[in-house]
Amino acid sequence: MKAARWHGVKDIRVEDTPEPKPGKGEVKVKVAWTGICGSDLHEYLAGPIFVPVDEDHPLSHDKAPITMGHEYCGTVAELGDGVTDLAVGERVAIEPIFACGECAACLEGKYNLCDSLGFVGLSGGHGGFATYSVVPARMVHKMPQGLSMEQGALVEPAAVALHAVRLSKIKAGDKAAVFGAGPIGLLVVESLRVAGASEIHVVEPSEVRRQKALDLGATSAIDPTAMDAVAEVREATGGVHVAFEVTGVPQVLPQCIDATRHEGQVLVVSIWEQEASFQPNTVVLKERQLKGTIAYRNVYPAVMALMTQGHFSADQLVTKRIPLDEIVAEGFEALAAEKSHVKILVEAPD
Amino acid sequence: MKAARWHGVKDIRVEDTPEPKPGKGEVKVKVAWTGICGSDLHEYLAGPIFVPVDEDHPLSHDKAPITMGHEYCGTVAELGDGVTDLAVGERVAIEPIFACGECAACLEGKYNLCDSLGFVGLSGGHGGFATYSVVPARMVHKMPQGLSMEQGALVEPAAVALHAVRLSKIKAGDKAAVFGAGPIGLLVVESLRVAGASEIHVVEPSEVRRQKALDLGATSAIDPTAMDAVAEVREATGGVHVAFEVTGVPQVLPQCIDATRHEGQVLVVSIWEQEASFQPNTVVLKERQLKGTIAYRNVYPAVMALMTQGHFSADQLVTKRIPLDEIVAEGFEALAAEKSHVKILVEAPD
Repeated sequence: MKAARWHGVKDIRVEDTPEPKPGKGEVKVKVAWTGICGSDLHEYLAGPIFVPVDEDHPLSHDKAPITMGHEYCGTVAELGDGVTDLAVGERVAIEPIFACGECAACLEGKYNLCDSLGFVGLSGGHGGFATYSVVPARMVHKMPQGLSMEQGALVEPAAVALHAVRLSKIKAGDKAAVFGAGPIGLLVVESLRVAGASEIHVVEPSEVRRQKALDLGATSAIDPTAMDAVAEVREATGGVHVAFEVTGVPQVLPQCIDATRHEGQVLVVSIWEQEASFQPNTVVLKERQLKGTIAYRNVYPAVMALMTQGHFSADQLVTKRIPLDEIVAEGFEALAAEKSHVKILVEAPD
Repeated sequence: MKAARWHGVKDIRVEDTPEPKPGKGEVKVKVAWTGICGSDLHEYLAGPIFVPVDEDHPLSHDKAPITMGHEYCGTVAELGDGVTDLAVGERVAIEPIFACGECAACLEGKYNLCDSLGFVGLSGGHGGFATYSVVPARMVHKMPQGLSMEQGALVEPAAVALHAVRLSKIKAGDKAAVFGAGPIGLLVVESLRVAGASEIHVVEPSEVRRQKALDLGATSAIDPTAMDAVAEVREATGGVHVAFEVTGVPQVLPQCIDATRHEGQVLVVSIWEQEASFQPNTVVLKERQLKGTIAYRNVYPAVMALMTQGHFSADQLVTKRIPLDEIVAEGFEALAAEKSHVKILVEAPD
């Protein structure tokens, strides 16, 4: 079968690989659609970040070259021994988290904080940029009737955003800021709408993305290259209850802090390539808080339920659909070149 | 009357000043004892930090030279008009916070987060290193019977520590680390005992302070110059629930983060002279949290109640008692030179 595999920086190849067979407790999925994630782009442009290169990942038992793709859905093609609650032909979204089940975090049910955390399609395993994927049955969530397959490929990134908002201290009626309106920032905007935020101020240099943020429910969109974004947010709100950091740019972290009110919270959603500095007095003197969030846990069913109500709509979020053969030129290179894309979906070959 | 006034760095003078009169709603207190705080020492060695120099503080309407001293107690000497719930001769501890009463934080009762926050004895007003102090009646707390006057001078620093622990997510049975065993760090150790922490690991280079921490209830005391303190804490605990940062040293902040477990919290108690750096992934990948704490609010009665039960005992915390005339040589200079002191109390002149 065809699969897009990471061999090195700027070296992702669509090549023939053996079709995987489901072992005990596993499920073979015929992939339908797979989204290209910012993490995938990072691995392409500046990796390896999550991709194991020198040693096998302790849970995937895999290392580069690996098949990429972790935002995906499809139909059940074959069941391994012992899998009884699924049937061939069922439409499923994949929750691609490797977790050991044995560390302190896993034993508390916080599997996204596993000491050996990994992701199918980043840390190894049978990623979604392929005809078929084989995963443990616990990663497989049945999709509700009425949810399109394209929508199924958006469950994973929407889960990141909904988990971030659920982890924050935002309450219905609160005011929020979102720094960075890439795909996850935009999904955070939508999640904040779901959570009943009364004001959502988006800070984003790209005009196309600012407009998209407004379309998705932001109440204002600020261009930080044209004005003092923190001053704008503070003037409008007196300081927000929660600022979401979705840029990974070190200079933005202190701006997020300054944009919050007393006892405000900065929810850090980004993955970082370098250190960030701040004056701790900005946290101390207002009893503010910085908190991190990673991936999601126990939230796929809620995301899909919200999707059936019209949230996180593929019609608004998917800006391009491409076949697997074109993933490098029309996918990674297009995302690197153009800030106008929200989500590019890759259609799996037969 | 005599007062110790800050004129500049390394320039605190004990000099004659006019005896203050209480205005409407104010109370004149004959000072008994006043502690020298780390903040006082900072103003002496590296100020001005809180001391207003160029412009009057908006609430004290005062600027340098100012009378220092904010950890103090005494007896009521005279009541201004309209003060009806106090009587001359009553023993009182002073809660020296200037707050405007009008900003968003004040209107929520979070007066320690006031936009114009100031402290008597740091931001102006009639500080405690003097024969008399005049303060608004709302700053005055009656001391319970059985609490010594020396104990009264410890209410303020104990309130800082108790507020920090109350603001943290520590629960009875949890494990904690305290980085820095100066006076506030030691009081945090005592507050953690009060809160029922099952393990309290103190990280402190000074041997004298480590021993004092053990005397006050720490379950271990680690010398970070002799071993990898974070590795020690993690090996003993698997990562603490809360790490208290009480050093203000930039390199210590990431150590505090690394010492916590998944979903762990770093409570930042220090006031900082410079920026600090950390890799935000250390917060993101374990969904950890940094939180700031400043001063105290609504906690003086609780501190004094705990003191009557034997907590925060002057017998263990006061290492030297000096007259006001000797405050520079035997107070500030001694604290700068020797790490063996916990709290030096200054006795007010008649």
